[in-house]
Order: sequence, then structure tokens, then C-alpha cells
Amino acid sequence: MDFIIANANWVSLVVSVFGVVFALVLRSWILSQDSGNERMMKISGAVQKGAQAFLSREYRAVAIFVGVVAVLLLVLGLLPGSGMSPWTVLAFVSGAVASALAGYIGMNVAVRSNVRTAAAASRSLNQGLRVAFASGTVMGTMVVALALLGISILIFVLNSVIPDRAAAANALAGFGFGATSIAIFARVGGGIFTKAADVGADLVGKTEANIPEDDPRNPAVIADNVGDNVGDVAGMGSDLFESYASSIIAAIAIATLGQGVAADRIAAGAAFPLLVAAAGLLIGVGCTYLVRTEENATQENLLASLRRGVYTASALVVVAVVVLGLLLDLGLGVVIATIAGLAAGVAIGYSTEYFTSDTYRPTQELAESSTGGPAIIIIRGLALGMRSTVPPVAIVVVAVLIAAYAAGLYGVAMAAVGMLATLGITLATDAYGPVADNAGGIAEMAELEDTVRERTDALDSLGNTTAATGKGFAIGSAVMTALALTSAFVTATGMGTEVNILDPRLSTGLLIGAVLPFLFSAQTMLAVGKAAQQIVVEVRRQFREIPGLMEGKADPDYETCVAISTDSAIREMVAPAAIAVATPIVIALLAIIGRGGNVIGNFVGVETLIGVLLGSLISAFTLAVMMANSGGAWDNAKKYIERGNLGGKGSDAHKAAVVGDTVGDPFKDTSGPSLNILLKLLAIVSLVIAPLLATGA
Amino acid sequence: MDFIIANANWVSLVVSVFGVVFALVLRSWILSQDSGNERMMKISGAVQKGAQAFLSREYRAVAIFVGVVAVLLLVLGLLPGSGMSPWTVLAFVSGAVASALAGYIGMNVAVRSNVRTAAAASRSLNQGLRVAFASGTVMGTMVVALALLGISILIFVLNSVIPDRAAAANALAGFGFGATSIAIFARVGGGIFTKAADVGADLVGKTEANIPEDDPRNPAVIADNVGDNVGDVAGMGSDLFESYASSIIAAIAIATLGQGVAADRIAAGAAFPLLVAAAGLLIGVGCTYLVRTEENATQENLLASLRRGVYTASALVVVAVVVLGLLLDLGLGVVIATIAGLAAGVAIGYSTEYFTSDTYRPTQELAESSTGGPAIIIIRGLALGMRSTVPPVAIVVVAVLIAAYAAGLYGVAMAAVGMLATLGITLATDAYGPVADNAGGIAEMAELEDTVRERTDALDSLGNTTAATGKGFAIGSAVMTALALTSAFVTATGMGTEVNILDPRLSTGLLIGAVLPFLFSAQTMLAVGKAAQQIVVEVRRQFREIPGLMEGKADPDYETCVAISTDSAIREMVAPAAIAVATPIVIALLAIIGRGGNVIGNFVGVETLIGVLLGSLISAFTLAVMMANSGGAWDNAKKYIERGNLGGKGSDAHKAAVVGDTVGDPFKDTSGPSLNILLKLLAIVSLVIAPLLATGA
Repeated sequence: MDFIIANANWVSLVVSVFGVVFALVLRSWILSQDSGNERMMKISGAVQKGAQAFLSREYRAVAIFVGVVAVLLLVLGLLPGSGMSPWTVLAFVSGAVASALAGYIGMNVAVRSNVRTAAAASRSLNQGLRVAFASGTVMGTMVVALALLGISILIFVLNSVIPDRAAAANALAGFGFGATSIAIFARVGGGIFTKAADVGADLVGKTEANIPEDDPRNPAVIADNVGDNVGDVAGMGSDLFESYASSIIAAIAIATLGQGVAADRIAAGAAFPLLVAAAGLLIGVGCTYLVRTEENATQENLLASLRRGVYTASALVVVAVVVLGLLLDLGLGVVIATIAGLAAGVAIGYSTEYFTSDTYRPTQELAESSTGGPAIIIIRGLALGMRSTVPPVAIVVVAVLIAAYAAGLYGVAMAAVGMLATLGITLATDAYGPVADNAGGIAEMAELEDTVRERTDALDSLGNTTAATGKGFAIGSAVMTALALTSAFVTATGMGTEVNILDPRLSTGLLIGAVLPFLFSAQTMLAVGKAAQQIVVEVRRQFREIPGLMEGKADPDYETCVAISTDSAIREMVAPAAIAVATPIVIALLAIIGRGGNVIGNFVGVETLIGVLLGSLISAFTLAVMMANSGGAWDNAKKYIERGNLGGKGSDAHKAAVVGDTVGDPFKDTSGPSLNILLKLLAIVSLVIAPLLATGA
Repeated sequence: MDFIIANANWVSLVVSVFGVVFALVLRSWILSQDSGNERMMKISGAVQKGAQAFLSREYRAVAIFVGVVAVLLLVLGLLPGSGMSPWTVLAFVSGAVASALAGYIGMNVAVRSNVRTAAAASRSLNQGLRVAFASGTVMGTMVVALALLGISILIFVLNSVIPDRAAAANALAGFGFGATSIAIFARVGGGIFTKAADVGADLVGKTEANIPEDDPRNPAVIADNVGDNVGDVAGMGSDLFESYASSIIAAIAIATLGQGVAADRIAAGAAFPLLVAAAGLLIGVGCTYLVRTEENATQENLLASLRRGVYTASALVVVAVVVLGLLLDLGLGVVIATIAGLAAGVAIGYSTEYFTSDTYRPTQELAESSTGGPAIIIIRGLALGMRSTVPPVAIVVVAVLIAAYAAGLYGVAMAAVGMLATLGITLATDAYGPVADNAGGIAEMAELEDTVRERTDALDSLGNTTAATGKGFAIGSAVMTALALTSAFVTATGMGTEVNILDPRLSTGLLIGAVLPFLFSAQTMLAVGKAAQQIVVEVRRQFREIPGLMEGKADPDYETCVAISTDSAIREMVAPAAIAVATPIVIALLAIIGRGGNVIGNFVGVETLIGVLLGSLISAFTLAVMMANSGGAWDNAKKYIERGNLGGKGSDAHKAAVVGDTVGDPFKDTSGPSLNILLKLLAIVSLVIAPLLATGA
């Protein structure tokens, strides 16, 4: 099957082009749908304008960042003896552009699908589901297709301009770094934006002005709706784009370095991740057609229809992995490793659902504890989050041990690829959520009949479940990817893998790595508070200064609220982002300086950086799971009470649950997910600059 | 100076005997003080009885645990080829007995000093301070003296019965393990007891029955007072006893194995920690006489008087370290390493104070955020705790790098010894707190005049500051000790220190280690809630069933509340303790099984255990600091508001701050401090069973 191996890159290129075309066609179908009455279009138009404003502002900031880093990479690449290829910069810029494009298209279609979902839901539940899910599918497919397309093209280019295969593979890591640059803005900045708008809108609207949620008189309501898309479409998409791309790149790099693959199977090992990804893309696209439902579907029916799609895709990918593994003669070990990763992803999703869905005991017990007051529900929620770290860690431990036993370092990287092989459809179930949520908001604001709101509520509620599962999946895949990247980094430094475990540089590196996620989370949590405060000031100003606003006679100035959220989100993300980018670079520089045999070498070395990567990996993993699951459980405990349990809305239990939910908001939507970016960023930056550390080592 | 080296053990023996005698004399002096009027004696008598009941019950449970472990150790020691000495069991039992004895004497004198402090405070502030501080000094000196005495005697015995010095040093580790057995009961069980009683008393007393704090009609009030002593005297004492003993043992073990000391300086290296400890004991005792104050002293004066004692002791220990280091010809490096540890301890104390005292911005800002409601103060408090992890980690990183650069692994162990060299007086400032707190309670219950309560309040408030500093110090020293123990463990396995950093057993070990503190904290947090609930039920029962209780005509049944708290605390600590003890043992057993070249060896090895130790170290460190400092800051933010700031007692800000304080209680007094025990326990158990892993490796 040497033909397949030699042409794997062509296969992935063609498949990814198909994916892009499919997504664009689906987009046209969505845009051809009925977009409702004038009032609905007006509201949706405001959300579209807000999203556009956010993206323009964000991408301007990203462009500056990408430009500066690109120049630095170019300088490093041209520096004689740096060991880095100047072509890294091409990969870097491509990664940034591809991820930005996927995010742009996904957001663009999401904010146009919301109104069409509302209109479709006024006809039937299934039609509403199909429009909303189609929007998610555009995003999911676009992410996967553009990532694979970028990697495929780059492999052609890099292999033709860089003679050394290992150096070419290392330059390819620039693609992952470029994708991370987008992710840090979309996930961290976006996470701050979405919660600042949400909290800000609630603080003044519900608490001070006593107007309901999604009331068009609230000047921050559009920012809140934009925020849902920013967080769960662009943010989640960029996060998983990066994991997806980086896991493939790490697998190629490790295969090229000959770790865990036989000497005559290196080319096959480098081809395998591309082919698995291509197969996953095709399977995912096909399985989206399984997602449909009947009228009067219960919540279980709806969930079952989504799961039919995801599980069928998983099963088919297993088949594809077995067939491809045999065709490429990579041995059973590689197949087992890849499937272990896929199974781990599904299992982590289950675990997340168990801890955060109110159909299971943990969240029900949490809701019951709300009768003891706010302090008790906070303590119980934190304890729930802490306990919930055990299954995902256990799952990753088992998957890593199996994968490494079956196929060494290459196996670990392929486990990450396997986990993300069904990303197209997994992300579709995720990115569909905010569309349904927005559709409900539009139905409310446009005063559509109650059945519409009921249908969109059903779709929204389903979206909450998939969002929770998606968060667990995002963390798990980030950890697997970071582990693969770290392996690739250590291999690429050429220092050999034997280190002195009692080297103080390693243990202090671990300590530094462990503290970074805590610092990062503190910064992002405080950022939400600061940004929300600015929204509050602006909303109060509009209520005061715009005559007739409260009476519904005048329109509020939505744009200013969006602009304020955007500006403060981007300002507040600078400090945490700077810490994440600077840490590996500073340590690497000190390690290089210390290599000359001077005193610094006793305090800082490559061991320090390895310690930082491993320390941040384990610390961010546990902290991120805790934050995501505490937050998810508080959210659902509140909703559980709002459905009439334990005294229902307005009871003391409900008030306590609202406190829990408010604490949980930045936990689950800002700080927790931001940690995914932190741990991958540290690893990908290290991998990109690995040649600097390798020269003269 | 070979004479000193040869007789270092005699020196430490004589000095520690002096310490024991000094503490007993001081105890007699305290008991000779005026013990107040009949009513005061009655209340104090109830606390004494409660403390006695708690200790008897706890020590019965400990005895069973110690007995079982002793039998296991004996069997392992007698097993041919296990590599472990049967004498380990002697060291183990000695460690348990010595720590239990120190805790018993310390608690015994503390619950007798409270009433005498109240009586002395009715004469003058200085007299109150002197009695309370004398009680702390008895505890501090007893801990240090009994630890040093036990180690000194054991060295004589073990060196005479075990020919091999390295094996003798390893058997000595049993002493630390014995001390840990006490610590896990006193710190974890005690932590659950103290907060269950506190929360339980408040929930029914303040909230339901509307009676003030420290009201003698509340059946749980005595349990609450007992709890203060259980947590901050017995718990803190046993925690630091263990750190103190283990750091000395680790230094001796590492010196004996010749790590970081020249071949002809091994005996000197083993003598040095004993001599530094002995010098520290004498200096500490002397400096307690510097702690006195004037009448009408401000809070600053009081703090200054305590600091005069501690800082003078630190300065004198530095002199002693320099002199001893030169006399023993160990070189400047060892001296620098030891002083680096001492300085780190002081710096960590400062950092804790900065983040938790309301004289600094962080806690003031936290208090201000309470105006935004309970959710905001929770978010801000968690963020504060997360940020506060940075300085202690940075301090430990710097201290470890300096110590390792100056004197290798031996330097790291000596840094831990140096940090704990002033423990006698540091612990005195800590253990004094609950005495002052109890004295205030007695003054309240016995209706003494207002000036007495004002004076005891001043003393109590000072105790809160020292308690916060002490917590930081306890964590820092636990981390340094665990690091030294881990180094000793790796060295003792004889596997060599070179490991494959990408070995999946290492990375999965790190992951398992990282998740343990989260699981442990969740368990202990939930345990407090469950135990408090049982107190609530009992208090309600007494209010209902004892006629005349609410009118003050009948006495409540204090003993039952103490018994319930004790029983539930001991029951609830079983699960977390079992996890901590079982984890290293199970992994070690699997590693031994896997050594035969079978499949298990691919999944579990000594590398896994090393990973667990390092992973839990960094995870527990950051989590413990976060919990302790969040909790401390919430507590002080509440007190800041209660002093009339931001609306004072009863305002909405105060209500929000109370929520923060309630969340913080199990954080800072149960879960946070319990993590110290977890990380040391994992390391000491591993070190004790290291010979099993070494044989045939």
C-alpha cells in the first residue's frame, strides 16, 4: 500500500477541500431559509453587527500580535545556527489565518442562523433543530477541514523547501502556534467578553431595573447574545482547532523522529494521522444527516438524536482506524492506541455529564444543599468539582498507559489524534448550542407565540448538555495534545530523554508550572469582574441619559456596550496571555545563556522547561476540570430549582443557587476553558523554539 | 572538632532533656497561677473534660492504627530479603508515642491556661499575655524537645543494633512515619472536629435559637472551645512535629548516603542537623523571655513583642549555623543552604500575612467587594487565594535552587532543617492563639467585666495573625520536608536518579499525584458538613428535651456534643486517610510485582511512585496555599467589616462577608492544613518501604 502512503497528503488535501465546499454549501442552505419577520430580523441584525464589531476589533488585535511574532520567528529563522527554519513563519501565519477564517465563518453563520432557527421552530421542532444543527455543522466541518487543508498544503511546501524531514516537521509546529495565537484571543478574550456581557446585563437589568432577561430595552442584551457566540462558537472552535491541528502535527513530528514506529514505517507513521483525520472528516459529515427528530420529542429524544450522530461516527472511525492501520502495516499497537484515545474522549464526555447534569445524583444533591444557604452550596459545589477531577484523570492515565504500551510515544500522539478524529460532528453538537440559545432570545424579544419559545427552550436545554460534555472533551483533548507536544519537544531538543529526576531544575520547573494555572485563573476571574463593571456603568448611563428607553419608546445604543465589552476583554487578556507566552521563552533564553557553563546553568536549564510543561499540564488539567464541572453543576442546580423543585424560583434555595451560578459563570466559561489554551500554548511555544535549545546542546 | 561530631548525639540528647524539663517547669508555673472564680473554673472544667474525652477517643483509634501498622512493619522487617529492618517498628512506635505525648501535654496545659489567662487578664494585659504565651511555649518546646529526644535515643539504639549505617538511617524514617500517624488523626480528624463543632454551634445557636456566640446555654459551645485547641494546638503541633522530625531524618539519611557531602564529611553531615536543632531549641527557649508587653499596648505593640522573640531567635540561629558549619568543616555551601531555608520560612510567613491581614490591600479590597454580594466576594476570595500561591512557590523555588547549588541534595534537606530550626518559638506564637480565644470565651460566659474581654480580644486578635502566618509556615515546611524525603526515597531505592522523562509511568504518576489533593480536599470538606449536621441534630434535641435550658435554669449536656463531634470526625477521616496511606503502598506492590518482567511492569514502576510524590507535592502545595489564604482573607474581611467598616455588622456587605467566612472555614482549618499531612505521608511511607523496592531492583 505504498501508493496510499506516498499520496496520503493528496488524500487529506482533497478530503479537506471537499469539507470546505460542503460547509459552504450548507451555509448557503441555511441562508436560504426563512429569516422571520421584520422585528426578528432587526434584532438578529443587531447581533450580527455586534458580532462583526467584536470580530473586527479582535482580529485587528490578533493581527498585531501575529505580525510581531512572525517577525520574531523570521529573525530567529534567519539567525545563523539557530537551528530554526525561516519557513516556520509561513506555517505560523497559515495557522493563524486558517483558524481565524474558521472562526469567522462559524460566527458569521451562527449569528445568521439564530433568527432562522427561531423562524423554523415556529413551524416545527425538527425544522428548528435542523437549522441550528446545520449552523453547528458548518462550524465543526470548517474547523476540521481548514486545519487539515492547512497542514496538507504546508507539508507539500515545507517538504519541498526544507530538505531535512525532521526540520520540516518542526517548522510545521508553527501552524499549531499560529492557531494558538487565535485561540488565546478567542478563548481567553472571548471568555472574558461573554461573561462580562452576561454578568453586566444581569446586574443592572434583572437586579436594578427589574426587567426580565433578554429584554430589548437592556442596552447590554445584544452584547450578551453576541457573547454566547463568541464563547461557544469562536472560542470553543479555536480551542479545538488548535488541539486538532497540534495533535496531528505532534504525531507527524514524533513519527518522523522515529519514536515508537519501526524504521521502515516512518513514512506510514507520518501518513496515518492525516488519513485518520481525513476519514474522520468524511464520516462526521455523513453522520450529521442522522441528527433529526420527531415533533413532540422529549428532551431524551433530542439528546438521543444527537448521540445517534456522534456515536455512529465514533463507531465508523474505529472501523476506519482498523482498516487504515492494517493497510499501512503499522501493526495492531498503533490501532489500539488510536482507539484508546477515541474511547477516552467519549468516556470523559460521560464523566462530565454525570457530574453536571441534573439527571444524576451529584447535581441533584448539590441542588438540595441549596436549602442550607449560599455558603453550603458553594462548599458543596467546590467539593463536587474537586471530586469530579478523578474520573477524567483516571481515564487519561489509562489511555496514556495503553497507548504508550501499544505504540510508545507515537501511540500517545495517535491517541490524541484518535480522540479528535470525530471532532467535526462533536463540535457541531457544541456550536449548535448558542444558536438555539440566541433563537430563544429572539423569540422572546420579538414576542413570538409561546410554543416557539418552548421549542427553542428545548433545543437550548439540549445545547447546555452538549456544552458541558464539550468542555470535558476540550480539556481532555488539550491534555492529550499537550502531552504529545511535550514528547515531541523533548525529542526535538535532542538532549536525550534521560534526566536526573532529582535535578533541582526539574523540581523547581514543576513548581513553576503548577503555579501558572492558578495565576492565570485568578487573572481571568478578576478580568471578568472588571469588564462587567464597565458594562454596568454604561448601561446605567444609557438608562439615565436616553429619554423614553425604559418605556420602550427609544432604542438603546447596543453598539457601545459591545464595543466596551470588546475593548475591556482584549485589554484584560493581555496580562494572562503575556505570562503564558513569555514563560517558556524566558526560561528557554536563560537555559541557552546558562549553557555556557556559567552560574545560571545551575539554576535554569532545559530541565526547567520540561518541568514547567509537565507541572502546568497536571495542574491545569485538574484545576480546569474542577472549575468547569463546579460551574456546570451550579448552573444546572439553579435550573433544576427553577423548574419547580425545592421551592422553585424566588425561594431561599433558589437565591442560594443563583449565588452558586454566579460564581460558576467565570469558572466554567472563562477561567476553566482558558486553561486549555495555557497548557497547549506553553507546549507549542516550547516545541517551536526547540531547535534553539538543540543547537550546541 | 571530631569530638563534637562524635558526640553530637549526646549533645542533642542532653539539650532535648533540658527542653522537656523546661517545659514541665513552665507548666507548673502556669498551674500555680490564679484560676479565677468558681464559675470560670466550672466552664474551664467542662472544656478540660471535653478535651480529655476527645484525646482519649482519638488516641484509642490511633492506638489501633499504630498497632496494625506496627505488626505489618514487623512482618515486613522479618521477611527474608525484604531489605527492611525489623527495628523500623521500634522507630515507628517511638515516633507515634513521642508525638502523641507532645500533643497530650500541650492540649492538657492549653485547656488549663485558658481560665488562668482570663484571670491574669483581669489584672493586666501583660500578665494575660505571659500566661497565654507560656502555654504556647510549653507546647512549642515540648514538640521540639520530644522530637529531638526520640531521634537522639533512636540513633543510639539503631546504630548499635544495625551494623549498616544506611539501613539504620532508613529505619530511623519509621520515627517520621509514626509521627505522621498521629498527625493524620490530629490534623485531619482534628480539623473536621473543630469546624464541625464551630459550624454546628453557629448554625443552631446564632441562626435558629438567636443566642450569641460563646453562650453557655448552647450545648455545642464547649465542643467549639475544645475544637479551637484540637485544631490549633494538637493539630498544628503534630503537623510540625512531623515536619521537624522528618526534615532532620531526611538530612541524616541523605548525608549517610553521601549525597552532597564529601566522603570524609559524612559523619559531620549527619551530626549537623542534630546540632542545629539543639541550638535552635536552646535559642528558642531563651527568646521566649523577650515576649512581654506594656499595659495599654496597641495591636502593633503586641505583634512587635511576639516578633521580637521570633526574629531574635532567627538571627541567633543564623549565627549558630555559621559557627557550627565552620566548626564541623562542612563548608560555606551547607551554611548558605541552611540559612536559605530559614529565610524562606520567614518570607513565606510574610507573604501569608500580606494576603490575609486587613492591614494590607488584598484583604481590604476583598472586604470592599462584599458590597457586590456573596457571589462577588466568593469569586474575589478564590482569585485572591489563587494569586497568593505565587510568592510562596517563588520563595520555595529560590530556596531550593540556592540550597541545591550550594550543597546538593543535602543542601535541600538542610534548608528544611533550617526553616524549622526556630520551631520552638514559632509554634509557641501559634499555640498561644486558642488559649487567648478560649480565655475570651470564658470571660464572656462567666460575665467578667468588659475590660477583661477587651484585653482577651486584643490577645485573640493577635493570635489570628500568628495563626495565619503559622499556616503558611506549616505548608512551606511540609513542602521542603516532602522534597527532602522524596530525595531520600529516590536515593534509597538504589535505582539511580536517571529516569526517562517521557516514561509514561512517570507522567501518569504525576497525574495521579496531582489529583490526590483534590480528592482529599473534597472528602474533608464534605466531612465537615456531615459532622456539623450531626451536631445540629443533637443541639436541637437538647433545646427541645431539656426543660429550662433556654431560660438558663438547666445545664446543657456538653459531653454528648463533644462525643458526637469526636466520633464523626474520626469516622469521616477514615476514607481520606486510607487513600493517603494506601496509594504509595499499592503502587509499590504493583511495581514489585511488575519487576518480574511481566506486563504489569509496563504500566507501573518505581517511576510511577516518584511521579505520584512529585505530582502530589506541587498540586497539594498550590491548593493548600490557595485554601488557607482564601479562608484567612475571608475571615479577616468579615472581621474588618464587623469593626464598623463598610456598614458594619448587620449590613448587606456583612451578610456577604459571612458567606465568605463560612466557605473559608473548612478551607483554612480543615482541608488546607490536611494537605500538609497528605504530601508528607505519601513521601514518608514511600521512604519507609524504599528497601522493598531496592532489593533485586
